[in-house]
Amino acid sequence: MEGIDYKTLLEEIYIEIEPLFGRGQVASYIPELGRIDGHQFGMSICKNNGEEFVIGDCDKDFSIQSISKLYTFALAYKTVGVKLWDRLGREPSGTKFNSLILLEQEKGIPRNPFINSGALVVADILLQEFSNPMDAMLEFIKEISGNPDVCINEKMKNSELACSYTNYALAFFMKSFGNINSDVDSVLELYTSLCAIEMDCVDLARSIRVFSSNGLNPWNNERILTMSESKRINAVMMTCGLYNGVGDFAYRVGIPAKSGVGGGIVGVIPGEMSIATWAPELDHSGNSLIGLKALEIFTTRTGLSIY
Amino acid sequence: MEGIDYKTLLEEIYIEIEPLFGRGQVASYIPELGRIDGHQFGMSICKNNGEEFVIGDCDKDFSIQSISKLYTFALAYKTVGVKLWDRLGREPSGTKFNSLILLEQEKGIPRNPFINSGALVVADILLQEFSNPMDAMLEFIKEISGNPDVCINEKMKNSELACSYTNYALAFFMKSFGNINSDVDSVLELYTSLCAIEMDCVDLARSIRVFSSNGLNPWNNERILTMSESKRINAVMMTCGLYNGVGDFAYRVGIPAKSGVGGGIVGVIPGEMSIATWAPELDHSGNSLIGLKALEIFTTRTGLSIY
Amino acid sequence: MEGIDYKTLLEEIYIEIEPLFGRGQVASYIPELGRIDGHQFGMSICKNNGEEFVIGDCDKDFSIQSISKLYTFALAYKTVGVKLWDRLGREPSGTKFNSLILLEQEKGIPRNPFINSGALVVADILLQEFSNPMDAMLEFIKEISGNPDVCINEKMKNSELACSYTNYALAFFMKSFGNINSDVDSVLELYTSLCAIEMDCVDLARSIRVFSSNGLNPWNNERILTMSESKRINAVMMTCGLYNGVGDFAYRVGIPAKSGVGGGIVGVIPGEMSIATWAPELDHSGNSLIGLKALEIFTTRTGLSIY
Amino acid sequence: MEGIDYKTLLEEIYIEIEPLFGRGQVASYIPELGRIDGHQFGMSICKNNGEEFVIGDCDKDFSIQSISKLYTFALAYKTVGVKLWDRLGREPSGTKFNSLILLEQEKGIPRNPFINSGALVVADILLQEFSNPMDAMLEFIKEISGNPDVCINEKMKNSELACSYTNYALAFFMKSFGNINSDVDSVLELYTSLCAIEMDCVDLARSIRVFSSNGLNPWNNERILTMSESKRINAVMMTCGLYNGVGDFAYRVGIPAKSGVGGGIVGVIPGEMSIATWAPELDHSGNSLIGLKALEIFTTRTGLSIY
Repeated sequence: MEGIDYKTLLEEIYIEIEPLFGRGQVASYIPELGRIDGHQFGMSICKNNGEEFVIGDCDKDFSIQSISKLYTFALAYKTVGVKLWDRLGREPSGTKFNSLILLEQEKGIPRNPFINSGALVVADILLQEFSNPMDAMLEFIKEISGNPDVCINEKMKNSELACSYTNYALAFFMKSFGNINSDVDSVLELYTSLCAIEMDCVDLARSIRVFSSNGLNPWNNERILTMSESKRINAVMMTCGLYNGVGDFAYRVGIPAKSGVGGGIVGVIPGEMSIATWAPELDHSGNSLIGLKALEIFTTRTGLSIY
Repeated sequence: MEGIDYKTLLEEIYIEIEPLFGRGQVASYIPELGRIDGHQFGMSICKNNGEEFVIGDCDKDFSIQSISKLYTFALAYKTVGVKLWDRLGREPSGTKFNSLILLEQEKGIPRNPFINSGALVVADILLQEFSNPMDAMLEFIKEISGNPDVCINEKMKNSELACSYTNYALAFFMKSFGNINSDVDSVLELYTSLCAIEMDCVDLARSIRVFSSNGLNPWNNERILTMSESKRINAVMMTCGLYNGVGDFAYRVGIPAKSGVGGGIVGVIPGEMSIATWAPELDHSGNSLIGLKALEIFTTRTGLSIY
Repeated sequence: MEGIDYKTLLEEIYIEIEPLFGRGQVASYIPELGRIDGHQFGMSICKNNGEEFVIGDCDKDFSIQSISKLYTFALAYKTVGVKLWDRLGREPSGTKFNSLILLEQEKGIPRNPFINSGALVVADILLQEFSNPMDAMLEFIKEISGNPDVCINEKMKNSELACSYTNYALAFFMKSFGNINSDVDSVLELYTSLCAIEMDCVDLARSIRVFSSNGLNPWNNERILTMSESKRINAVMMTCGLYNGVGDFAYRVGIPAKSGVGGGIVGVIPGEMSIATWAPELDHSGNSLIGLKALEIFTTRTGLSIY
Repeated sequence: MEGIDYKTLLEEIYIEIEPLFGRGQVASYIPELGRIDGHQFGMSICKNNGEEFVIGDCDKDFSIQSISKLYTFALAYKTVGVKLWDRLGREPSGTKFNSLILLEQEKGIPRNPFINSGALVVADILLQEFSNPMDAMLEFIKEISGNPDVCINEKMKNSELACSYTNYALAFFMKSFGNINSDVDSVLELYTSLCAIEMDCVDLARSIRVFSSNGLNPWNNERILTMSESKRINAVMMTCGLYNGVGDFAYRVGIPAKSGVGGGIVGVIPGEMSIATWAPELDHSGNSLIGLKALEIFTTRTGLSIY
């Protein structure tokens, strides 16, 4: 790994992904997301030793969407510990991210924190644990990303909230099983606000380095998560982070990762580095088509993977 | 990792697992398996550099059962390559190992090679690719384990075949979708014979070292699998190897592994070592209760995991 | 049928059902329903020729709950005709009355008008068709029952609305598929108000006579439904009226019927008579245990059934 | 009903259905069935008073297929009584006739005797109750149809047996739950032989009159089934006889009926008459497209239905 020329590699990746523009589709079910120009790609690498490499639109802010589920899971796990698992599983769902079928069969206990139902329960836990959970979350993200200006795109949030019928259904359904304590509107407000946070690839990669560094804050080496917490968050990411595509991602890319319908993907090579990619066009399972390809080239070329 | 005293660690593990004897239950659905004495535990570690450490009943033969699915998957993948994925998925199923529900919804295409339906398709592929697939499999296992005496327990095989109603149902169901080409009896005969192979922990750990060594034969450094094949087999093991318990295993233990209802578990720490445990008493998901605990202690104490 | 002494038969039924008090359980998931005294039973028969026979607590008002689904289906079908089937099926669901599983598989189209999801869609249709759908419904019920005082128990309605999480989930879920047009709160308000209508057995039996009389208003012989509409409503009742118990009810009782968790059941013997029973204690599938038994005795003793 | 001119009505029906030839498709999954000329239609009415009316190809033999499930259910119910329900339900399945999903969820207990799994269990019961169940069945059918020459088409049976993979899967799956006692081959042999019985519309309508006559043998007025048994068989037919189309059939036609993929449908108007239609082209749910239309015209025009 010492001999890898990351700068050149990123340039090669850019050339190889270019023909793929137009192959995927920008998420359209949230009107505000549908307006994004699909012809964009950024990638940022953040080694544990502090070195950084970037390419393309790596400094353009975009909607992190479900990547926020990684932050909320981490803060909730850090805060309430294993009690989290009383209300939540940690198994892959094998179904679409917003399916209600398993939720009915499993009596309102979501399979894991990375599907919508699971993240709604995590939001409900944050509402119970913090007097101002939105502030707590933003503080946490600002701390680990090192960027004090991270904030919510209110227009995006409102656009999303106005069409969150499935998420409302999920939250009410879990409330019918007693697994949502706050009122549904508050849970949806918090959840949707977190999805509407905007960051760029550089900040994303930096913020994720806490998981490639065994829980240490990359900026000051203070411990944010225990080593065990950090490893376990990576493990849950590996088996549950890409919805019904976890197996294929493990097979093709081979690192713990979390994607969002805004087109971002963050990945972790434990002990080595963190990576963020962004390309708004999605494949049929809702993951960034070009981001996924870029990560596949990256781990194939470098031989870096956890396997 | 250099400083770890594996001998002492294995002794500590033995002491810690002893109080757990009697907590699980020996598999009873195959009469011949039900006769095993549950009060047994063996563990074997096989480092990539050739060092080996063992404890307990590590040299007693037992029925490898579903661990055979790892061998058949490896040989079929090595033989037909990515064509394998025309008839088989590589996603976790999120359901019991012998469920027919997804198989109906997904029109006879099994989710992955590590559930029964998937292994039956792999057996069918071996029947097409080899004139004597059983011999080919035994040769393969003998080669990677370095033990020329590996063989099938015929009594176990017949005991199992006589109650394989669910596997017959799975095979006929897939045949109705055109995803079994040979006759069902031949597929069941091969599949069940492979389950009835007997090995001890030492041989198992040795045979698995090909996956911790990027595909090299541990005995002569000849290449058996490409690096990519080896990594990808580990990836599929990680996301699909423990049935509906993959997420929990990743969280608690954190290494690619495959279990069998005979009480064995094999695990891989890529680049480092392979591990085999055996303890016949199973937990409610059909994995060795004590084997799982031993692996959890091992990765927790050493800090070795892929995350 | 001419020779049947209904008065004596009802007295015999009362004696036979008495030992069953205490065997079932009053619905408890709506607090206001849970307060009902379970030790009550009423039955009312209303022959097409105008003769009426009653027994027990036949003049006590109770919450009609899901029996309202029959009225709303009838009024919506009468109003929009076969267009109803664009948004709704007419097949038995084979699952619990409030399941979301089929709804996800069938993309927001409820199986039939007698499960909760179906009745919510019917409520949504009434909201589109009538400027004041609640008044229209009450007018319709008053007209066919001949009782101008039928009204809603507001306390019951509010008690129910406060715990309608599953129904909210169903409505939001269907809205996500585009099968609810009004806002969810209005749909829930109308639906729940209709469930909270109170009637006694006498009024219920009278109101149902429109379906045993081929669509004629029993009070003035004016046509309310066409003969075809009336027959088809009976057919849908027969195959879908008792949730996941339709087959058993057809087998044991053998007439089109609709039940409610308030303990009421209404049944139709086409060309002959209508029947209403009330007994608040429910069996495990949510139907009145004693009401069901009373109807079984009734059709067995008289030989009246549609088969 | 006295004034209906059935002869003219059948002639009108023939004219109305003629334009529909070519709209459906002959069943092709059994090779021998696929060879049938689709351009055929026959209909036979058999009034309880003995009058008979026929039209078209009413005297051509065809494969009765699933209509045999009605005969086997009747004979098994008559023989073992309510014990039948220990191994079998009587609820509509809401799914395809050969689905395994509910069977897994409900641990090997089929929903009703009219889906394949249910009829396989009934065949298994006949194997236990009769030394020669095939003879017993043929005797029963000969007795109620009045035709001593009813027999099995061996070529059809063998053609069907050679592709019965799904039925083998169903039988093995139920055997894994302990709900098949005989060996699977014997069950399949009996089941498939019964499907391959050939009859014409005249014989079918005559044989079904036992169900429209409250259980009396139409030929000699001897009692074959009790009144209760006859009514209950009709009830199960009504709610379960047309697979996942029972609700629609009840709505459009409104009588208890059973269909087969050979293109036959038999229907019962209790107390009045029995009907058989045959037209080999099927709709997408596997019911005879023209037969269904003919029955719809018949009940609409006569006003005869059970509702």
